[in-house]
Amino acid sequence: MFEQSLAQTAELVEGRLSEILSGHDRVARGAPERLLAAMRHGTLGGGKRLRPFLLIESARIFGIQDDAVLDIACALEAIHCYSLVHDDLPAMDDDDLRRGRPTVHKAYDDATAILAGDSLLTLAFGLVAGASKIPPEARVRIAALLSADAGAGGMAGGQALDLAAEQSALSEDEIARMQAMKTGALIAFACEGGAIAAAASSEDQRRLRRFGEIIGLAFQLADDLLDETADAAQLGKAAGKDRARGKKTLPALKGIEWTRNRLAALVAEAESELAPFGDKATVLLEAARFIASRDR
Amino acid sequence: MFEQSLAQTAELVEGRLSEILSGHDRVARGAPERLLAAMRHGTLGGGKRLRPFLLIESARIFGIQDDAVLDIACALEAIHCYSLVHDDLPAMDDDDLRRGRPTVHKAYDDATAILAGDSLLTLAFGLVAGASKIPPEARVRIAALLSADAGAGGMAGGQALDLAAEQSALSEDEIARMQAMKTGALIAFACEGGAIAAAASSEDQRRLRRFGEIIGLAFQLADDLLDETADAAQLGKAAGKDRARGKKTLPALKGIEWTRNRLAALVAEAESELAPFGDKATVLLEAARFIASRDR
Repeated sequence: MFEQSLAQTAELVEGRLSEILSGHDRVARGAPERLLAAMRHGTLGGGKRLRPFLLIESARIFGIQDDAVLDIACALEAIHCYSLVHDDLPAMDDDDLRRGRPTVHKAYDDATAILAGDSLLTLAFGLVAGASKIPPEARVRIAALLSADAGAGGMAGGQALDLAAEQSALSEDEIARMQAMKTGALIAFACEGGAIAAAASSEDQRRLRRFGEIIGLAFQLADDLLDETADAAQLGKAAGKDRARGKKTLPALKGIEWTRNRLAALVAEAESELAPFGDKATVLLEAARFIASRDR
Repeated sequence: MFEQSLAQTAELVEGRLSEILSGHDRVARGAPERLLAAMRHGTLGGGKRLRPFLLIESARIFGIQDDAVLDIACALEAIHCYSLVHDDLPAMDDDDLRRGRPTVHKAYDDATAILAGDSLLTLAFGLVAGASKIPPEARVRIAALLSADAGAGGMAGGQALDLAAEQSALSEDEIARMQAMKTGALIAFACEGGAIAAAASSEDQRRLRRFGEIIGLAFQLADDLLDETADAAQLGKAAGKDRARGKKTLPALKGIEWTRNRLAALVAEAESELAPFGDKATVLLEAARFIASRDR
């Protein structure tokens, strides 16, 4: 039931991203075909589309139709995908494989991967700005929030801290800060952004932000746990890489049992944040459980 | 007189960018210090700030105060600077020197330069979204336009075409298209964006767009002419590089006299676009002349 709902939204997002990146849509008109192809390579044909799903579901709580926030959801996915394209570069994590396919710089070249990432990031804000079914006041708030959560004080800053961690081991607190920025910020944005788009009350916006932060923590813990326990075939990418690089993760520091208990506690916290929304938040709660227990 | 006016705006922009990149400002709060330092390195301490100047002067025609559009002007400069940081990378133009100083990847490292560029680009849209003295309706239009002009169909796409030109020589038309995207789009954005921020009529917005496109052409021609005729000390960067790489430019194809005549014709065109604004556009017209005749 939940996985079906996730798959349906993924199809919706895939379709719209495919349309946007065809080059016929306003937001990428006139783009060179090879650059567009690299952007498609880095964006289409895979991914659970979890972040767009969370954004769409957060807006749904307040009765907003999917199509009103679809371009904002696609913007969020474009940002997530740009970050993967750049993180995979030789100068960064140097990965050859992503979702079981060559990474963008392997399929094209480093320069094209840099420009494709830049272009996806730039496109994202065009999508937010042009989301005509959302009032301009909400669109500028969403763009400002996305900028904060994706930029130097959010995702990009978290990646910088993560790279620095290869030089000197981080403390538990530093790992938590890095992960809250690198992974948590965009997930928290998804939930808060959906609420802003829906013109929810400030209290409900804050509540969804906290929910997003909690499941962001759970997402990263589950990811690190997979890196410890899964193999490459399960992940579609190299496994055990963090360990091999000497990067400390919480599961590595605290053990697998501790991590499983912590994940259960986070799901309980997430549940209590959603309680005031009653049945309307059932799908989001299932998303929290899915995130905490996923095995790929 | 004109150069004084340009220098005054440059100081204003430098001051605000410095404040933004201190990390205390809302838009970059919580950023890791080393990443912020790299962003400052790529942004502060140099540059004529021509694009912000054009934006501020375009808004001024319609009676808008500098401080109302300052953050949008800084956003534009942040995008220009991010593009330089990424273009200088070894995988792109591989430049060690910029404005007489080491490029960001030389002063820091490639990964930090990639992330600093990403962060500046992300920050730019946060600045536009948060420009509270401009109505939200205008801010979303400006953000959408900036996304189009900076992205795959604009500046980033132009850079992709420029890199492709190292493999196979471009025709005159292809060179013109590449330069209109790579350099022209942001300059045209500056002029149109100022008019949108000032809620100018659609006709005046289109007029300033055309003016921007004309001076964008002049800017690139003057730049290519400098690459042919100036030395590194004048430029603060390597000279004759395009030639050495086998990149064709219009001055290289058509000669120096042709280029000087073409520049004069573009200034005349620019002048006729500005005629309806009368004295209010004096500074912009001086900017057009400055751009066509600059020697560094």
